[in-house]
Amino acid sequence: MGRWQPGTRERLEQAALDLFLEQGFAETTVPQITARAGLTTRTFFRHFADKREVLFAGEELVPERVARFMADAPPSLGPMELITAGLAPTAAEIFEGRGLDYLLRRRTAVDAEPALRERELRKFSLMSEALERGFRDRGVDDLTARLAAEIAVTTFRIAVTRWLDQHGDPDLPTTVDQTLAAMRNLANTPPG
Amino acid sequence: MGRWQPGTRERLEQAALDLFLEQGFAETTVPQITARAGLTTRTFFRHFADKREVLFAGEELVPERVARFMADAPPSLGPMELITAGLAPTAAEIFEGRGLDYLLRRRTAVDAEPALRERELRKFSLMSEALERGFRDRGVDDLTARLAAEIAVTTFRIAVTRWLDQHGDPDLPTTVDQTLAAMRNLANTPPG
Repeated sequence: MGRWQPGTRERLEQAALDLFLEQGFAETTVPQITARAGLTTRTFFRHFADKREVLFAGEELVPERVARFMADAPPSLGPMELITAGLAPTAAEIFEGRGLDYLLRRRTAVDAEPALRERELRKFSLMSEALERGFRDRGVDDLTARLAAEIAVTTFRIAVTRWLDQHGDPDLPTTVDQTLAAMRNLANTPPG
Repeated sequence: MGRWQPGTRERLEQAALDLFLEQGFAETTVPQITARAGLTTRTFFRHFADKREVLFAGEELVPERVARFMADAPPSLGPMELITAGLAPTAAEIFEGRGLDYLLRRRTAVDAEPALRERELRKFSLMSEALERGFRDRGVDDLTARLAAEIAVTTFRIAVTRWLDQHGDPDLPTTVDQTLAAMRNLANTPPG
């Protein structure tokens, strides 16, 4: 057993991403990834279940984080207030410590590979389920809980895309807040 | 060349759905479907590209229908007004002539099979793209066009699920309008 190495996950992520972009996802093996990162396959499997999971490091924690945030928020906050208060900090936390260059290259790799796109969709679906459960636990009715969860995830997804398209300017929390404002503005226009 | 047979598509749909539910999607072949429907495989391939498409009959027309509706609507209508005016009739048109029993059984088959779930997601994604293009063509800014398209599709999707869960009561247009009202109500609550 080697000493704990700082940055092991990050090295595996970078190596996997390099190889996915250079030679394709299907052609890349775990031994190739670990060789590129200068690590052993044993180390790889201590951190990730398979090569697909390398680009989704730590994202299994998102539902838990969402649940905790919702349980801790003042009971008086309604669904939209909660989304407005929580979405930008959650987004910032999720992407903390990831460079813009890594995230842009990661997006290119995910877009190119159906198995990665599917995993990305599953991530958003788990986030939506956690939000829906959180709203219900706060006494919100089923339909509103479902709609609020979907609106939060949709806004989040569109904001991240926009932020990457703008190469990180303005920063992610600002882009999330702008996107939320546009969403509210849209929904607030009078019906026909 | 045989005479045109009324209900050929519907017979193939029912036969395919029966077999998917009885023995699974992977185990079902096109010759089995056509045998069950009392038709030839040649007839099958005049109507559908493959066995997956049988449960998505006519849905390739949805984006075109959406585009036409948006182009024809009065230019004065804003995005939310357009969604409010168009979503319920579009939903009714899409499911016209399909019995509730068929739609409930279809949902069971789709939920059970990743290839069908993926096709279902693609359908919603094509609908969203058509809406986004339609809004842009009406002079709506990029971000609002994207958000409005996603809100429309999300509301549509949640309304259909709800309508099926309620076994068709109230009817689909009413359920769509109730879901839209809940969505507007949610977004209209004051921010924190």
